[in-house]
Amino acid sequence: MSGNSLGKIFCVTNFGESHGPAIGCIVDGCPPGLALEVADIQVELDRRRPGTSRHVTQRQEPDQVEILSGVFEGKTTGTPIGLLIRNQDARSKDYSNIVDTFRPGHADYTYWKKFDVRDPRGGGRSSARLTAPTVAAGAIAKKWLKAVHGASIRGYMSQLGTIEIPFESWDHVPNNSFFAANASVIETLEQYMDQLRKDGDSIGARIEVVASGVPAGWGEPIYDRLDADIAHAMMGLNAVKGVEIGAGFKSISQRGSEHGDEMTPDGFLGNNAGGVLGGISTGQDVTVSLAIKPTSSIRIERRSINRAGEPVSVQTLGRHDPCVGIRATPIAEALLAIVLMDHALRHRAQCG
Amino acid sequence: MSGNSLGKIFCVTNFGESHGPAIGCIVDGCPPGLALEVADIQVELDRRRPGTSRHVTQRQEPDQVEILSGVFEGKTTGTPIGLLIRNQDARSKDYSNIVDTFRPGHADYTYWKKFDVRDPRGGGRSSARLTAPTVAAGAIAKKWLKAVHGASIRGYMSQLGTIEIPFESWDHVPNNSFFAANASVIETLEQYMDQLRKDGDSIGARIEVVASGVPAGWGEPIYDRLDADIAHAMMGLNAVKGVEIGAGFKSISQRGSEHGDEMTPDGFLGNNAGGVLGGISTGQDVTVSLAIKPTSSIRIERRSINRAGEPVSVQTLGRHDPCVGIRATPIAEALLAIVLMDHALRHRAQCG
Amino acid sequence: MSGNSLGKIFCVTNFGESHGPAIGCIVDGCPPGLALEVADIQVELDRRRPGTSRHVTQRQEPDQVEILSGVFEGKTTGTPIGLLIRNQDARSKDYSNIVDTFRPGHADYTYWKKFDVRDPRGGGRSSARLTAPTVAAGAIAKKWLKAVHGASIRGYMSQLGTIEIPFESWDHVPNNSFFAANASVIETLEQYMDQLRKDGDSIGARIEVVASGVPAGWGEPIYDRLDADIAHAMMGLNAVKGVEIGAGFKSISQRGSEHGDEMTPDGFLGNNAGGVLGGISTGQDVTVSLAIKPTSSIRIERRSINRAGEPVSVQTLGRHDPCVGIRATPIAEALLAIVLMDHALRHRAQCG
Amino acid sequence: MSGNSLGKIFCVTNFGESHGPAIGCIVDGCPPGLALEVADIQVELDRRRPGTSRHVTQRQEPDQVEILSGVFEGKTTGTPIGLLIRNQDARSKDYSNIVDTFRPGHADYTYWKKFDVRDPRGGGRSSARLTAPTVAAGAIAKKWLKAVHGASIRGYMSQLGTIEIPFESWDHVPNNSFFAANASVIETLEQYMDQLRKDGDSIGARIEVVASGVPAGWGEPIYDRLDADIAHAMMGLNAVKGVEIGAGFKSISQRGSEHGDEMTPDGFLGNNAGGVLGGISTGQDVTVSLAIKPTSSIRIERRSINRAGEPVSVQTLGRHDPCVGIRATPIAEALLAIVLMDHALRHRAQCG
Repeated sequence: MSGNSLGKIFCVTNFGESHGPAIGCIVDGCPPGLALEVADIQVELDRRRPGTSRHVTQRQEPDQVEILSGVFEGKTTGTPIGLLIRNQDARSKDYSNIVDTFRPGHADYTYWKKFDVRDPRGGGRSSARLTAPTVAAGAIAKKWLKAVHGASIRGYMSQLGTIEIPFESWDHVPNNSFFAANASVIETLEQYMDQLRKDGDSIGARIEVVASGVPAGWGEPIYDRLDADIAHAMMGLNAVKGVEIGAGFKSISQRGSEHGDEMTPDGFLGNNAGGVLGGISTGQDVTVSLAIKPTSSIRIERRSINRAGEPVSVQTLGRHDPCVGIRATPIAEALLAIVLMDHALRHRAQCG
Repeated sequence: MSGNSLGKIFCVTNFGESHGPAIGCIVDGCPPGLALEVADIQVELDRRRPGTSRHVTQRQEPDQVEILSGVFEGKTTGTPIGLLIRNQDARSKDYSNIVDTFRPGHADYTYWKKFDVRDPRGGGRSSARLTAPTVAAGAIAKKWLKAVHGASIRGYMSQLGTIEIPFESWDHVPNNSFFAANASVIETLEQYMDQLRKDGDSIGARIEVVASGVPAGWGEPIYDRLDADIAHAMMGLNAVKGVEIGAGFKSISQRGSEHGDEMTPDGFLGNNAGGVLGGISTGQDVTVSLAIKPTSSIRIERRSINRAGEPVSVQTLGRHDPCVGIRATPIAEALLAIVLMDHALRHRAQCG
Repeated sequence: MSGNSLGKIFCVTNFGESHGPAIGCIVDGCPPGLALEVADIQVELDRRRPGTSRHVTQRQEPDQVEILSGVFEGKTTGTPIGLLIRNQDARSKDYSNIVDTFRPGHADYTYWKKFDVRDPRGGGRSSARLTAPTVAAGAIAKKWLKAVHGASIRGYMSQLGTIEIPFESWDHVPNNSFFAANASVIETLEQYMDQLRKDGDSIGARIEVVASGVPAGWGEPIYDRLDADIAHAMMGLNAVKGVEIGAGFKSISQRGSEHGDEMTPDGFLGNNAGGVLGGISTGQDVTVSLAIKPTSSIRIERRSINRAGEPVSVQTLGRHDPCVGIRATPIAEALLAIVLMDHALRHRAQCG
Repeated sequence: MSGNSLGKIFCVTNFGESHGPAIGCIVDGCPPGLALEVADIQVELDRRRPGTSRHVTQRQEPDQVEILSGVFEGKTTGTPIGLLIRNQDARSKDYSNIVDTFRPGHADYTYWKKFDVRDPRGGGRSSARLTAPTVAAGAIAKKWLKAVHGASIRGYMSQLGTIEIPFESWDHVPNNSFFAANASVIETLEQYMDQLRKDGDSIGARIEVVASGVPAGWGEPIYDRLDADIAHAMMGLNAVKGVEIGAGFKSISQRGSEHGDEMTPDGFLGNNAGGVLGGISTGQDVTVSLAIKPTSSIRIERRSINRAGEPVSVQTLGRHDPCVGIRATPIAEALLAIVLMDHALRHRAQCG
């Protein structure tokens, strides 16, 4: 595998570019017999889809998925599931002014250094658009985890820039554009984003993802610990700069007598572990927190260089998310689902 | 691979238990022609070795490594390098009182749930002792990165519990037991640790690791981004609960106009990226920060359960590190070296 | 990877079923900068295509390939190449009479035992139709091997049933339906096949594949020797029951003084090795020979069982190749090309 | 993985050279709870051991294995099993005369071309001695297959040079030096080998391996079919030049009405399939046949070149097997066991 696959037994291989004809993936290793139809996948893609509010990119993509293989008479067959999403609204002309320059904080520079190719069309392969196939594959993993283990994966935004968004209830999450688990803060967030767009700037965010119902015993230490593979998947998501499991960076200043979650016959008394000890699931909620950086594509002028190494001033005018964190929640859920399903199958292989 | 291998082309496969006859690894994929002798590896093992100060476990292990294969007349041959370290000071009797109970915050519970085996001897496979083979393999990667690319990997402790340890100079790091890059704070740290041992408690720490001299272009997006594989390796290290690249969690509250590192003909003007953009190295320092939790094996009594699920009180009396973070610096360096070398070879495969 | 990928660095992941909406693959790990257009792939697909003579299945499939990603302005970008082929002529009704029964010698029985799914539509995933994506991927490997190493891969049929087809010249191969390197035997082969179709029976064949221009040094012993990976790829092709490298089974009765190819300053004096010694290429032609069994789908009535385990009589009336070996030559070439390109890149990773 | 690992879930990683301090392997992915002791492994190593008759190399190696990890209180723990065999009788001086020359038909030339290293000590990594760790790992797989599935793997030599050795009974196999399943032919074989040694020449052989009790449903098409992975493992064994499954090369001249094994309620009526259809096990015996070439290290003088490319005459005087096929039977059994166990676990992962 050359880097574009995620998972060892439940394995997702991703292809496509932002402005090519299509994006998609092959999901290999899904057990046979899982009821699966397009709607199961489409519902998750619609949560991630661009153009759904004024706070995200205005690119219009229906993100309609086609199942090309691996499903027969409404059930998975155990063979690879091919998933295809055609790109519909790729306006390459928007990018004509940046063919020769690099955006500060953007992957266009490093892709050019690596591959010696400059594909300016919407970031090419480095675009966040390539998270759509991940979400599609994650929908299958979510369905399997629910069907076989009763496990569910949910996420929410807990911080937008400097604004913390306290968790109130999962019920709020589907009712706002931010995946906030809190109704009272929405107006503040909307005003904040409106001002940000006027400024032509962007902002970071924090996302929480929680898996409930995961049985104890999943994970392959060492080195493919459950938390290690979660960190790999999450840090592999565009714009993520930090990953925490459980108490995360708070663990630094905790004493052992505070951090270690005591156990009683009724279960654990805390979850500083975030549901993982020694790289193996404990049976508690698996809790993950992500730091997402602000988008590099902004209207504000910035200093950069061109391909000849000469100084230039760069301003990005295409359609972009001013906060990629807003659409990151369903993607992070998908990644967690893929990792968990892969480890469920790996556990089944080794421990029956 | 069943979880005990790290890297795809430069691939380390680890075996052993804390109180078995030996630990070690096979390092596969090292290019031929690298000058290598035992001393190159031993020097790194000695930095990680237990028993070197009163602040770490008093277990006496020389950690003498034997090269079993892959080196002929002082040079690597391109064939697998077998590395063996015999365990010398395994007092299994120390653990007799915990055969049937589980330490809060410890992997003994999850290993039992996964494998249905209870090996109480020093944590068995989950012991931090198993980081020694990683350090040995990392020594080879360090040497290759230096020889072929002039790259170097260094680390230091930047926080112990609530005590921040400001970076002053790399020169200080080898001169104290904490890998602190600061001479003035050592006395404070020593007093803090002495009190902690009296209390029978443990504490967390933060480690920084920096790779300098990494060329631009390493990384395999998506999904095996350079930062993703670093996160995988680091979160796969015992006791790590959080990983940051570059600005890390600070990115959440940064604006794009602040976060994106501007470029000039003389180079980048900042390094919020931590040397990675779009999953590919930029040519700047690769900077990684780790949160390490406090050891779960403490003398303070804690509530737990036994294998029958009944409530018990647990106190751990064996020899343990009161702060596993103290010995984590050379291990984190080794992990970063392994990931970088693997990506160097992967890059060479695909891009020549 | 869950079984549907071939290659480690140059990695082909295959999806699709004979009678689903589409088949295809993702080619990951192709270096950037290779000139590539649809015609490069289509020419190989056309060699394998059904319906091109009366001696193969009469299913009409244009096998028109679409490149979905990984190519920009006529060159590969180093990112995954998505390839899609729509199925056009899938007459599932042909198979209605075999929904509940199993063909002797066919995979429908084992797929059912493995997956507990019965997809009778043209053999589903086990159909030889799934070799089309392999051929498409192989076309890319062929082009790269030629462009970078000047290596070429060619094949021909050397035996059809009991009829041996002596090699005369590569020039004959494209000029007959059998990929025979011999013009004088064609009429005999045609008469043989015509009679076979009348009989409603099928027949086996032997295919030779030769790679010229492969440099010395490719192969990863042990276990991923070049010959081992060739054997894996070839035995993974539908209907193959035997694989030979070089002298193959003749080696059994050879003495060492006869088998070992002597060397002179001008090169080897023989090629019993088939271009591979100790799992590594010698620089000579890599020569591979395949045994292909007769198709299991025949009109002649045979004893079998149904899903209830009851005895039945089975006769297969759909459109089938009476000799799958006839179309196997371009597929075997593609497989050899994929393995060689993968090993070229693996060699480059380890040995620069 | 860089080529020295076999299997994906049950994964054996091999290290060592013929004349280094030790050889061995790590067996990763063995399920916990399997009763395992040194004797289980030693018995298989003793079958492969050199020096046991006058017909094999006279090197004296006890091949005593040490289990370094992964077993606790007589049972596997689910963690990696480290296996170590010290080399005892490495007379490197025997090879001093061939430091600069290459044996016709030997891997010393290709290893030099690949790695640019010349390790003349007993063939270094390319020596058949490296099959000992494979046999050790295979002993574990054999034990697991028997314990969990009641499956057994057995092999025998069916041809030595031009002498065919008809199968009479498994009972004969352990009672002669040739693994012949026939008592009456032994004297002929002994005389043949005695003459061969006098001639200073070597000879090829054919080995049959049979797995009984394998359930239907193992195999991962496409590409990791059960037969493909068997072919990979077998062709990866030193000196193997050909692999057949079931009817093998006889399939070429068979008609479909003859080749396809008919089924009745009582089972299959034949086994041309060799227990594999469409890459998946049928539940019948899995039958494999191997062609093993004559050893390249012979006393007879042969033409070759030296490292400078100049013509030389080469004669090999060290201790060698005049027929490596004689000791190949237990190795081929081990390889088949490893592949089958890996597929058993892979099947369990995907199909429960």
